[in-house]
Amino acid sequence: MEQGERQASQRLDLQIRFILEMDKLKTIIRRTYLLNADRAENTAEHSWHLAIMAMLLAEHANEPVNVSRVVKMVLIHDVVEIDAGDTYFYDTAAAADKADRERTAADRLFGMLPPDQAAEFRELWEEFEGRRTPEARFAGALDRFMPQLHNYHTQGRSWNEHGITIDRVLERNECIADGSTRLWECARALLDDAVSKGFLKKPGRD
Amino acid sequence: MEQGERQASQRLDLQIRFILEMDKLKTIIRRTYLLNADRAENTAEHSWHLAIMAMLLAEHANEPVNVSRVVKMVLIHDVVEIDAGDTYFYDTAAAADKADRERTAADRLFGMLPPDQAAEFRELWEEFEGRRTPEARFAGALDRFMPQLHNYHTQGRSWNEHGITIDRVLERNECIADGSTRLWECARALLDDAVSKGFLKKPGRD
Repeated sequence: MEQGERQASQRLDLQIRFILEMDKLKTIIRRTYLLNADRAENTAEHSWHLAIMAMLLAEHANEPVNVSRVVKMVLIHDVVEIDAGDTYFYDTAAAADKADRERTAADRLFGMLPPDQAAEFRELWEEFEGRRTPEARFAGALDRFMPQLHNYHTQGRSWNEHGITIDRVLERNECIADGSTRLWECARALLDDAVSKGFLKKPGRD
Repeated sequence: MEQGERQASQRLDLQIRFILEMDKLKTIIRRTYLLNADRAENTAEHSWHLAIMAMLLAEHANEPVNVSRVVKMVLIHDVVEIDAGDTYFYDTAAAADKADRERTAADRLFGMLPPDQAAEFRELWEEFEGRRTPEARFAGALDRFMPQLHNYHTQGRSWNEHGITIDRVLERNECIADGSTRLWECARALLDDAVSKGFLKKPGRD
């Protein structure tokens, strides 16, 4: 086997190990419920759904975005949950060490890849986390917008299971507007309607 | 509301209906089993996994490919299963009307989108089905390669449940080589090993 072919084969071996490891993301369970089945969503299918959204909704971003980069970013934005688990969005106690846990996970997981690809994936993930580019702000907006749709269309199932009230939903999600004011307006209208229908409660009420 | 804003809002409404419809892909069950949980894979998480593979394995394609296009293609390649169901790869009877069923599904599903995006998604899907571009051949190779990994690493669970023998696996998957001879060589080695370990049977044996 000539050297180029041997190197390609060694790279493929590392890539396949990483791909097999990724299968675990299908077993990481989120708090949101599916619309058409009585079960919670897993992070792999959530990531797929965000990628479809990125392909369709880029025209609503506040700033022009490179759609392909947003797609790649959302595809890998949560793979660290394989080690770090899904940290519930409204769990302030778990949020305290979330960044540390996820950084350690990123070291191990992306470190499985050939160095150039480890760097590429790490960079995409850091960009998503940093929210400092138009692509990252828009990807972050999609990630927060989707659970509003899931909650609304399951009569607030996850909100109510965890005692989440409208004030907390607004506070934690208003940064959707940083990526897309139109998506945030759409979410606001949905949340108002959720309150009027009793899917989402106001604070201090049973 | 000015006209531009009203049009954007109408488009967003159509896009969100499509996005909600896509949730159903998470309930379409394939014949392959997960590596880390005792359940079969659904088509949404399968599509996510292929997209990750596309991001990593493009260097092994026979011809240079536009990675972003391959990613988008695999993300939507199976959404027609929402209406048409998953047609088992080795089910020759079901294969007879598969194209018709999936075309009808594509009409309805992509037809939910604004016309420009309906055309874009339809074109990506037709391209994948046609296997006439380097991107489509490589995407097709990934789609056929992944189940070999899943089967091998679950001791041939799905092969054995359906009585699939090595001759049929080779015959149905040799077109992996059209997209990537290296992936096909890798699959061949895996299949040989699966036979030697008893995960995959030869024809005419129990």
